[in-house]
Amino acid sequence: MKELGFTIDRWETGGGPVLFCQNCNAGPNQPTLLLYTHYDVQPIDPLELWTSPPFEPTIRDGEIYARGACDDKGLTFYTMKALQALIARDGKLPINVKWVIEGEEEIGSPGLKKIVASKARELKADYLVVVDVGIPEKNTPAVTLGVRGLVTFTVTVEGSSTDLHSGMLGGMVYNPIHALVEVLAKARDKDGHIVIPGFYDGVPNLTKEEEDSLALDLFNEKEFNRDFGAQPVGGERALPPLVRNWLRPTLEVNGIEGGYHGPGFKTVIPAKAMAKVSCRLVGNQNPEKISNAVKEFFLKNCPNGLKMDVFIHPGAGVASITSPNATVVQAFAQSFSEVFGKPCLNVMCGGSIPVTAELAKASGAEVVWVGLGMDSDKIHAPNEHFGIDRLEKGFLTMARGIELLRK
Amino acid sequence: MKELGFTIDRWETGGGPVLFCQNCNAGPNQPTLLLYTHYDVQPIDPLELWTSPPFEPTIRDGEIYARGACDDKGLTFYTMKALQALIARDGKLPINVKWVIEGEEEIGSPGLKKIVASKARELKADYLVVVDVGIPEKNTPAVTLGVRGLVTFTVTVEGSSTDLHSGMLGGMVYNPIHALVEVLAKARDKDGHIVIPGFYDGVPNLTKEEEDSLALDLFNEKEFNRDFGAQPVGGERALPPLVRNWLRPTLEVNGIEGGYHGPGFKTVIPAKAMAKVSCRLVGNQNPEKISNAVKEFFLKNCPNGLKMDVFIHPGAGVASITSPNATVVQAFAQSFSEVFGKPCLNVMCGGSIPVTAELAKASGAEVVWVGLGMDSDKIHAPNEHFGIDRLEKGFLTMARGIELLRK
Repeated sequence: MKELGFTIDRWETGGGPVLFCQNCNAGPNQPTLLLYTHYDVQPIDPLELWTSPPFEPTIRDGEIYARGACDDKGLTFYTMKALQALIARDGKLPINVKWVIEGEEEIGSPGLKKIVASKARELKADYLVVVDVGIPEKNTPAVTLGVRGLVTFTVTVEGSSTDLHSGMLGGMVYNPIHALVEVLAKARDKDGHIVIPGFYDGVPNLTKEEEDSLALDLFNEKEFNRDFGAQPVGGERALPPLVRNWLRPTLEVNGIEGGYHGPGFKTVIPAKAMAKVSCRLVGNQNPEKISNAVKEFFLKNCPNGLKMDVFIHPGAGVASITSPNATVVQAFAQSFSEVFGKPCLNVMCGGSIPVTAELAKASGAEVVWVGLGMDSDKIHAPNEHFGIDRLEKGFLTMARGIELLRK
Repeated sequence: MKELGFTIDRWETGGGPVLFCQNCNAGPNQPTLLLYTHYDVQPIDPLELWTSPPFEPTIRDGEIYARGACDDKGLTFYTMKALQALIARDGKLPINVKWVIEGEEEIGSPGLKKIVASKARELKADYLVVVDVGIPEKNTPAVTLGVRGLVTFTVTVEGSSTDLHSGMLGGMVYNPIHALVEVLAKARDKDGHIVIPGFYDGVPNLTKEEEDSLALDLFNEKEFNRDFGAQPVGGERALPPLVRNWLRPTLEVNGIEGGYHGPGFKTVIPAKAMAKVSCRLVGNQNPEKISNAVKEFFLKNCPNGLKMDVFIHPGAGVASITSPNATVVQAFAQSFSEVFGKPCLNVMCGGSIPVTAELAKASGAEVVWVGLGMDSDKIHAPNEHFGIDRLEKGFLTMARGIELLRK
């Protein structure tokens, strides 16, 4: 970045620092673009399921395999190459560019969130481009008009001060695994609706026009089956899959653990059991209110005689949404159309980039989310990968999009 | 054992071999006693909760801490010392003694069960004393008139071929953890009854006389709280705790695992989730029928679009019960009374010694279960321990009980 004429500030956050890069040589008559990507990645376990080591990038059949190959080092890399190419061709960038490369996205950006408001002057920009999302299919260009919010919990149930023998005590004590599965099962009815009071407060009802602007018919069950070995039978089952993924909130158990789960059998009643739970939020759902509603529901449904703790992790984030008519959306939609040679779709992202809303507010910029990730890239999972062909297309879409923002 | 004049046969079982020891020098006019103990132990994890290493026996405050200190090496040890003392005093044992010391009790004795019928001639005995149970309190002598049966399962639910991102796919796929907790929660109603069809078939209704012969009022909630840091609020809550533990079956989740449950958070939807489940059986509950009923219930309640596998572990066992009037019960009740200096109670054991029923059948013997374990010994858990005082009392009860069986 220094070679490309950027100044680099390192913003300490207490965790992974933020790298703030600036090249504003285009001058005051050109607009300012704020880019956002992140360099941190998800944990690698279960390690034994990786075909090649997660931190030794390995190319097989035109795909590069590594943790972060897609999310978000691959996208960061092609964005950097786009800036390099523009400078190589023109001697300077067509517009002013600022870039936040952060290191705590995967844990909800706690450090950046703390400082973002105080950095409003540095972050000030006309456009915010978050390069951390995907396209629906390999040859289908799309820009993303919104991401979901996120709140996460660790739920612990304690039944006794020590592990117990399921024969000697079975039938007398209340197994904390039973309490945990009962409470988790109670959160949802048979149709997949979340029954926690207040959970759907703030979920938007889109107008027909708003829904029509989104490519909600993109879902392809056959490809879904092939890519994930899964059926689209979860969530609120009466709704179409992409409505559930883009426009509805979730309550997901991301992990559960208790007792003996190794080879063979151990007739134990464990002292404790725990679960990791997350909610994806949409529209105006308030993360704090939803967190408290979920916590209250779990605690209220914990059987008497057991101790439950519900820890709300820091780093909650609201959902964000942008207009299909925004200048920055139009510029990148055109860039994607040109690079792919077909019309660009408007999609949304079921995932979360929790700091997005704060960055948009502090910078005063209009926002779009772009990127060439695909659902089949296995981000957050073993064998994450990214296509070499998409490195090239990504580079082209970024360079052309930036060029199109020039006045 | 060789020094005590026993012949030792090693019965290969494919797993931990059975040691079959015999000293029948008392001659044909004296009865034959078959002893049963086991040398195998439960897994030691979680290792980090042990105060001293599980396989380095350590004495603290009059208690010996080690895996197996109680279950069942401690009891095996004092039984051996009793035989040694009788021989030291009289030059020979008062009755003929056979002893099965097996190595697969904790996994349901699959090897011994396979060969037990074919060893009927060797095992033939008048009395069977299973030394693998406990007393209700430190100073309360008791013999055990029955143990519960046991069936165990591993339940696996698979939702996709790989771990998935809970944002990108959340709301579309059916999280296998959700399916698992829903199925497990469905097995039980709000009063703790198991709602699986046929589950209670074979559960006995005891007569008032039968119930009165048992010390069902022994339960002390204050001591229970102190020993386990737990409330007696589990199982079929309308029934008294010891009825639930001795006379009613259970369905217990002994372990559960899925997704990410380490430090921090990982927004994953796991490909798989699994649980270990066991049922304690009573009366005439048929292990095979109960296993199939549980399996069928789980499979029937697994949501469409996910794959569930229910593995029934080998080693299931029926419940066993003996009469308070049996000679061997009377002899050991007298021995316990003399050693403790107070009347001996009749109790039952919530645990299982699955091979008991087969051994009783093959040997043709009448059976009693004895031992000085206590609920607070933390068998199967970290920091298993046994009192030095009980090693002495155990030695005395065994020696005197054997002596009282002499004609």
